Amino acid sequence: MPDAVLIAQGDELTTGQTVDSNSAWMADRLWALGVRVRRVMTAPDDLPDLSDIIGQASGLAPIVVCTGGLGPTRDDLTAEAVAAVTGRPLRLDPVALGQVEAMYARYSRRMPEVNRKQALLPEGAELLENRWGTAPGFRVAHGGARLSFLPGVPREMRPMFELHVEPDVRAHHDLPRSTLRTLKVVGLGESALEERLAGLDVPGMRVGFRTLLPENHVKLVFSPDVPAEVQSAAVAEARARIGPAVFGVDCGELPEVLTQALLQAGHTIALAESCTVGAVAAALGRVPGVSAALLEGAVVYSNEAKVRLGVPEGLIAAHGAVSEPVARALAEAARRRAGATWGVGITGVAGPGGGSPEKPVGTVHIAVAGPDGTAHQAQRLPGDRHRVQAQAAASAMALLLAHLPA
Amino acid sequence: MPDAVLIAQGDELTTGQTVDSNSAWMADRLWALGVRVRRVMTAPDDLPDLSDIIGQASGLAPIVVCTGGLGPTRDDLTAEAVAAVTGRPLRLDPVALGQVEAMYARYSRRMPEVNRKQALLPEGAELLENRWGTAPGFRVAHGGARLSFLPGVPREMRPMFELHVEPDVRAHHDLPRSTLRTLKVVGLGESALEERLAGLDVPGMRVGFRTLLPENHVKLVFSPDVPAEVQSAAVAEARARIGPAVFGVDCGELPEVLTQALLQAGHTIALAESCTVGAVAAALGRVPGVSAALLEGAVVYSNEAKVRLGVPEGLIAAHGAVSEPVARALAEAARRRAGATWGVGITGVAGPGGGSPEKPVGTVHIAVAGPDGTAHQAQRLPGDRHRVQAQAAASAMALLLAHLPA
Repeated sequence: MPDAVLIAQGDELTTGQTVDSNSAWMADRLWALGVRVRRVMTAPDDLPDLSDIIGQASGLAPIVVCTGGLGPTRDDLTAEAVAAVTGRPLRLDPVALGQVEAMYARYSRRMPEVNRKQALLPEGAELLENRWGTAPGFRVAHGGARLSFLPGVPREMRPMFELHVEPDVRAHHDLPRSTLRTLKVVGLGESALEERLAGLDVPGMRVGFRTLLPENHVKLVFSPDVPAEVQSAAVAEARARIGPAVFGVDCGELPEVLTQALLQAGHTIALAESCTVGAVAAALGRVPGVSAALLEGAVVYSNEAKVRLGVPEGLIAAHGAVSEPVARALAEAARRRAGATWGVGITGVAGPGGGSPEKPVGTVHIAVAGPDGTAHQAQRLPGDRHRVQAQAAASAMALLLAHLPA
Repeated sequence: MPDAVLIAQGDELTTGQTVDSNSAWMADRLWALGVRVRRVMTAPDDLPDLSDIIGQASGLAPIVVCTGGLGPTRDDLTAEAVAAVTGRPLRLDPVALGQVEAMYARYSRRMPEVNRKQALLPEGAELLENRWGTAPGFRVAHGGARLSFLPGVPREMRPMFELHVEPDVRAHHDLPRSTLRTLKVVGLGESALEERLAGLDVPGMRVGFRTLLPENHVKLVFSPDVPAEVQSAAVAEARARIGPAVFGVDCGELPEVLTQALLQAGHTIALAESCTVGAVAAALGRVPGVSAALLEGAVVYSNEAKVRLGVPEGLIAAHGAVSEPVARALAEAARRRAGATWGVGITGVAGPGGGSPEKPVGTVHIAVAGPDGTAHQAQRLPGDRHRVQAQAAASAMALLLAHLPA
């Protein structure tokens, strides 16, 4: 496994203005490629500091990827630091200049004079085209390492990493063409997943976990010598061990998967949310195109709102607002009012207040009403208010997904 | 300004499983204290790598704070690495052991044998009590630096940083007792804020910016020699220059501020959200205690749902769903149906589809209906779907807040 060092630079990182999500994103990609990240190093916009870490990085690993510091202002010192470390003076790269100018022309603007700086590259550097912004990237070889420099803006960095860095890493290292399979899970945490997969040892398979509240991902990486049928069997075995908490393999996020499934089936939904206070609606609402499926949502936090939606007052009085009958009634009322294929009802105690010995914080009832009746699920979710709401919303989406045509 | 180095360790960081939010949080706190972070260094759970960065850090800065690697498993190597670097053999610390045992006892559980490891500290280390979890922290002096080791779990690390690290940094460095004032803003980005504050130079004042979508924060740090009245005048001047986009100074997040203002006034609200699809409801729903103020929310994505809520069909036909009259009608209908003090209506084009030359993506109409009539605001928001929704939701909350009693 070859080693890599990631460098993230900028005062915005060392003053806490910005969280460095780039390094985690690249580390994830490199892990899947079969590259081991030995260091992530961050320094402020300061020439000696930058030169120091760039020099150090090139001594530590053959693969170095650095983000940030390619902008037009005087704080952007990456090229200068590379020039100092590698002894390659800065030269105006006419191709890079043309690309910066073209990027401005695309928006019918003239390139400001200050942006010429972005075309000053260390002599002999390989230009890495940026089709997503004005800051060109570049690559130099130094001290046994290949150092790639990318802009820090994630929506520019990510496609440039895929276009310029991944192929270069493959070209210079004998990496197995490994296969990554990702099982996506809702409702089981990392330690529970580790436990269920304990002993699932397949030669040539690595297992990784990733938590993206409210989802957990299990990553299976197979080296190319693992036969396809062994890979499929391992994925199936992992899926069987985890059980119905798996909502998909190699798929998008749960709200996307659910929206696609609804649109594909030509089904519609209506929501009645109490303790999640619109969390399901907001999650689905972020998916482009969901308007064709999501007819209506009701945030029925108060009992009066539940009654207005159509939940019988007596039902609430008899069982309490947090109960199976009320969850069912919410789902059915939402479905009926909107004339939707499916109705989803959620009621629970998100906390921190409102808990009781019989219904402690984290108690959640979910119901899905559909053409063939109403399904119900009771849960006891851990964590604080936000986590209970996020997990309850995800559980409701997963429950509905399980009822849709595959 | 004294220097600091932050160390974040763990395979979960170098494989991209987790984003390192701890370092940004600490860097922010240190920046406000007047400490300059010169490096953030991350390494995998590997003894030589950890020893290497711990040794390097103590040579770079007098303040070193390290998070992670204090757990009970064999991957948790921090204490061992510190022992190797400082030549202090590991010893069982009876006070630390008592604290770990007490933490288990609190949840009526016996401490597993494996957790004894957490009480093995480098000889002569100062124990840093962890009242929020089982992993004790510790501190050692080495090579002119004081190195504090804290657990990586944010809800344990943060209070421990405040309790153990900040006072120690103050005790060992002549830091000005500076005053931090934070102006919180919705609807203006960092570059617009920088522009409006350009030339606002007060001797002894530092200015910082932080973007936490959908909020932007302006941080003013005053050294102690700046008289209180000069500080107040600078805050007032900054607030005046930014204008009504400031929703508060030294306050919580916008949904919290709005909820507190509603509860204090004894007012209630009802929501009718189209393009934000429940984003306002979900944001408010995360605030504990909001149930007393938020009576009902309607996600009225479809025109049928808008009509069911009480928007006249003819109004939609005449002006289109994305229009000032429909926003006003939504706010008024929501208010009327729930019998709330305030009604909030939002309609717009979140994208990526649905835009037209007259109503491009990002067009949003917001209305707030109250006892004295209905206020309206039209906006053209930049960014992708998620950003438009988040900004529109925040603008609606800010508009309502501006109408509440101060």
